[in-house]
Amino acid sequence: MTRERAYFEASALRKHGGLCSDHVPEVYHFDRAMSLIGMRYIEPPHIILRKGLVAGVEYPLLAEHMADYMAKTLFFTSLLYNSTTDHKKGVAQYCENVEMGRLTEQVVFSDPYMAAKYNRCTSPFLDKDAEAVRGDDELKLEIAELKSMFIERAQALVHGDLHTGSIMVTTDSTQVIDPEFAFYGPMGYDIGAFLGNLILAYFSQDGHADQANDRKAYKLWILKTIEDSWNLFHKKFVDLWNKHKDGNGEAYLPPIYNNSELLSLAQKKYMTSLFHDSLGFGSAKMIRRIVGIAHVEDFESIEDASKRASCERRALDCAKSILKGRRQFESIEKVIAHVQSFTRD
Amino acid sequence: MTRERAYFEASALRKHGGLCSDHVPEVYHFDRAMSLIGMRYIEPPHIILRKGLVAGVEYPLLAEHMADYMAKTLFFTSLLYNSTTDHKKGVAQYCENVEMGRLTEQVVFSDPYMAAKYNRCTSPFLDKDAEAVRGDDELKLEIAELKSMFIERAQALVHGDLHTGSIMVTTDSTQVIDPEFAFYGPMGYDIGAFLGNLILAYFSQDGHADQANDRKAYKLWILKTIEDSWNLFHKKFVDLWNKHKDGNGEAYLPPIYNNSELLSLAQKKYMTSLFHDSLGFGSAKMIRRIVGIAHVEDFESIEDASKRASCERRALDCAKSILKGRRQFESIEKVIAHVQSFTRD
Repeated sequence: MTRERAYFEASALRKHGGLCSDHVPEVYHFDRAMSLIGMRYIEPPHIILRKGLVAGVEYPLLAEHMADYMAKTLFFTSLLYNSTTDHKKGVAQYCENVEMGRLTEQVVFSDPYMAAKYNRCTSPFLDKDAEAVRGDDELKLEIAELKSMFIERAQALVHGDLHTGSIMVTTDSTQVIDPEFAFYGPMGYDIGAFLGNLILAYFSQDGHADQANDRKAYKLWILKTIEDSWNLFHKKFVDLWNKHKDGNGEAYLPPIYNNSELLSLAQKKYMTSLFHDSLGFGSAKMIRRIVGIAHVEDFESIEDASKRASCERRALDCAKSILKGRRQFESIEKVIAHVQSFTRD
Repeated sequence: MTRERAYFEASALRKHGGLCSDHVPEVYHFDRAMSLIGMRYIEPPHIILRKGLVAGVEYPLLAEHMADYMAKTLFFTSLLYNSTTDHKKGVAQYCENVEMGRLTEQVVFSDPYMAAKYNRCTSPFLDKDAEAVRGDDELKLEIAELKSMFIERAQALVHGDLHTGSIMVTTDSTQVIDPEFAFYGPMGYDIGAFLGNLILAYFSQDGHADQANDRKAYKLWILKTIEDSWNLFHKKFVDLWNKHKDGNGEAYLPPIYNNSELLSLAQKKYMTSLFHDSLGFGSAKMIRRIVGIAHVEDFESIEDASKRASCERRALDCAKSILKGRRQFESIEKVIAHVQSFTRD
C-alpha cells in the first residue's frame, strides 16, 4: 500500500472530525513527508468493535452514534449541502487516493468472483460454495453494476472501509478510525459496510454460543442495532436535509423543490435508492469476507471448522440473495426478517 | 464564461481527435496563457448541422459518422477500456472545468423548472406550458435524478454540449467542434444531446413547410437518422467492447465475465441503462430549449409565432412524456413511434 494513504487518512479524519467531532478522533499534527499522523489516543477501555461483537458485549449507544456519524459525514460532503464547485474540488483531491481504491475494487468487487490467487475459504466445507459464487452469472451482473458505481459515482466523501474493525467503542463512546481508503464515492458503500459487518457478526454468533451463553439475546440485540442504525440514520439524514434545504446545496434548489410535499417525495426517492445501494454494497462486503482474501475475526475465531463453515454458509447465502433482490426490500425490518430466515431460530 | 475553457476545449479536441480523427478537427497549437487554439479550418461547404436541418438538407452519412464519433470517444474514455488509475487522472483534470459544468446545471437542470430571470418562451402562446413545467412535480423528481447523475457520475469524457450546433457537415463529412464543456460525466448526456436536438429539428419541420416543400419526406429522413444513429452507435460500441474485452478495462474483467453468454447479458444490461439515460438527458435538453434561456434556430427561424408555438408545444409535450416514461422504452423504434404520435402525420 502507498505511503501517501496517510495523507488521505489525515485529511478525511480532519474533514469528518470537523463534521462529527463526537465520533472522530482529533488530529493534532500531520507531516506529509514523514507520513506521520499525531492524533488523539483512544484510551482503554475502548476496544475494536469487532472484538466486542465476538465477545458478545452490547453497546447500547452504537446505533445512535453510528447513525449520527454516517448522517453528518455523508450529508455534509454531498451535493445536498455543497455547491458543485466545492464538491468537484473534493472529488479531484481524493481522485489521487486511487491506489487504495484499486485495492478495494480488487478484493471486494473482483477476486471473489473469479479464481484468484489469494482467495480462501473454510475448505473443504465451502469449496463448492465459493465455486458457486464464481459461476453465478446473476450475481456477476449485479456486482458489475456496484463496481462501476463504486468507481464512477462521487456522491459524498466516504470513509471507504467502515467495517466493525474501523470502529472503537466503549458502552458510551464510539470512535471511527482508519479512513485511509477515503474518497468521493457512493454513500451506500459506507452504510453497507457497517450494516453488512453487523450481519456477519449476527451469523457468527451460533459459532460462539456455549452452555454458559446461547447468544440468543445477543443475536436479537445485533438485529435491533442494525434496524436502529438504518432508521436513525434515515431520520438524522432527512432532518439535516430539511434543516439545510435553503442553503447552498446544488442538488435540490429551493425555488424548484418549493413545496413540502414535493420535497418529501424527493427525499423518499433519494432514501429508497440509498437504501438499495447500501444493501447491495453491504452484501458485497459480506461475500468477500467469506470467499475472498480477507476474512473476519467474527468467523475466524470459531475454532471448529465445520461449525464455522456452517455459519459462513448461511451468511453467504443470505448475502447473495440480498445482493440479487435488494430492490425488493422496502424497509430494514423486511431485511432483518430475511436475515433471520437463514437461521434456525 | 471563464477563459480557461479554451484549455479544456483544446484538451478534449486532442483526446477525442486521437480516438476519432475522422470526425474531430486537428489542433495544431494551443497556448494556454493566451487561450489561443490553432486548429484545422473546417472549410466550406461545411456548415453548422443545425442550419442544414433548418434548410431541409439530407446528410446520408450523418448517422454513421456520429455513431462512430460517439462510440469511439465514449468507449475509449470509459472503464470498459481504461484502468481505474488512468480514469481517475482524467476525472481529476476535468473537475477543474467546473464553471462550465455549473452553467449547464443551471440552464439545463434548474432554470426551466423554476421562475428564473432569463427563461423565455414563445409568449403568450406557451406561457401556460412553461408554467406547467414549473409545477410538474413528477418532472422535477426525474430532473433531480438526472442532475445528480450529471454532476456525480464520471462514466466517460463527454463532449458536454453535443447539440446540432456543435457539428459541422457536408454530405460526406461530419466534424464535431466546440467541446469547451467537456468533463467526465454520463455517456447518455452526449447521446441524448444529439438525439434530442434531432427530435427538436423534427418537430420544427412543420413550421418550415411551404408549398414548394411539405417537408414530409425530410421528417422521415430525420426519424431514420435518429433510429440509425442509436442503432449504429449501439453496434459500434458493443463491437469495440468485444474487440477490447481482454484489455485493461477495469469494469468487466475477463476472468469474471468469462463466457460469451454472460458478457452478452452484461452488455445488454449496460446498453439498456445507457439508452434510458440518453432518453432522459435528451428530453431534458429538448425542454430547456423551449422554456429556458437558450432557444434553437430550428424553432426561432419560424417567423409566425403561433405556428412556432404549436411546433414547440408538441416537442415539449413529447419531451416531458419521454423524460417521465423513459424506462418503458425498449428500442429506438418505439421512441420514434412515440415521437410521431405527437404530430398529425
